[in-house]
Amino acid sequence: MEKPKSHLVPSRSPKRTVYDQENIYGILDEALFCTISYSADNRPYAIPTSFVRYEDKIYIHGSVGSHFIREIEKGIPVCITVMLTDSLVVAKSAFSHSVNYRSVVIFANAEKVEDLTRKKESFEWLTNKIVPNSWEYLRPMKENEVRKTTSLAFSLEEASAKIRRGMPNDEEEDKPLPIWSGIIPLAAHRLTPIADDLSQNIPLPEHLRY
Amino acid sequence: MEKPKSHLVPSRSPKRTVYDQENIYGILDEALFCTISYSADNRPYAIPTSFVRYEDKIYIHGSVGSHFIREIEKGIPVCITVMLTDSLVVAKSAFSHSVNYRSVVIFANAEKVEDLTRKKESFEWLTNKIVPNSWEYLRPMKENEVRKTTSLAFSLEEASAKIRRGMPNDEEEDKPLPIWSGIIPLAAHRLTPIADDLSQNIPLPEHLRY
Repeated sequence: MEKPKSHLVPSRSPKRTVYDQENIYGILDEALFCTISYSADNRPYAIPTSFVRYEDKIYIHGSVGSHFIREIEKGIPVCITVMLTDSLVVAKSAFSHSVNYRSVVIFANAEKVEDLTRKKESFEWLTNKIVPNSWEYLRPMKENEVRKTTSLAFSLEEASAKIRRGMPNDEEEDKPLPIWSGIIPLAAHRLTPIADDLSQNIPLPEHLRY
Repeated sequence: MEKPKSHLVPSRSPKRTVYDQENIYGILDEALFCTISYSADNRPYAIPTSFVRYEDKIYIHGSVGSHFIREIEKGIPVCITVMLTDSLVVAKSAFSHSVNYRSVVIFANAEKVEDLTRKKESFEWLTNKIVPNSWEYLRPMKENEVRKTTSLAFSLEEASAKIRRGMPNDEEEDKPLPIWSGIIPLAAHRLTPIADDLSQNIPLPEHLRY
């Protein structure tokens, strides 16, 4: 990841900003959803969507008829944000409250994935990210489904991460106060899958047992 | 909530879009974080941040020196998105996979909260949203802390929600396939608070016991 270009948003907390691939890829591979923003007539629009990172790009998809996809597939500038929240940071004063988070901001322009094999691969990567090891188990994708779906790639060249970890940073004069301070961890996890009516007698496949 | 103005993004799934206050407020009150996008020179910028709804507005805050706050406090158009993900929708084909989510999109312009009492109240609402019933327990906010922080309000007049619930919608011809389909619920919750070094001998207050 390169250092930011001049149009990147200056940060109040430069010490929290990192550009190393390991941190950026780690956040992108853990998060299932991002928010993609774009401008039209200097007005902002933003849409949350699922995504997958593969090598040095992230991929999203959408219906070929989607207004959002048709706007951004032109290659206009987009800003993609991803945030994972690890804990609430509870200080002795409201002012020193914070959040332990790991976020990524990417500035990029969509590249439409035209090659059919690559396009299908991008769907496979996404499917296997959302539900690990599921692609081979599913009914194979049809050519017309590939045609009806647009796949867009975004370079990670202008990506940066911001990370806050650890305990509260209370003001020196607040530290002796008998007020509880610490963190409240936030957990996010998957529960046991629930079969639909069609699948009451179909065994839960191995990749969904955890 | 009004029906969308012409500049709102047309949706591929109009049946998933709702404008009723109950759904919109429910999502805004459950979610702790939003993403705020704005345009500058027709380029998009986006920042995730915490927020609170009070009556028919949402409030965010930030340092008076924050570049982001200084841009949007001018009253330029912003797009605010909020998403809660309830479950992954696992169909018999990758193409029919989906996500059960509840999202809100708000188009608005920041109104700077200048009144000091109102401003302090907005911090109280936010603090009590993030950590319920905590405001009265904390070291009271100081006037200089109020001055160092900007509070911005955004009208919910142009807010809409999109909601997907329920089981997969597999293609008719896929329904007889012996492939498991259903949902994977996603859980998000708070774990037991962890005290910092300053609070090892301070009892966990009532509002943090759950």
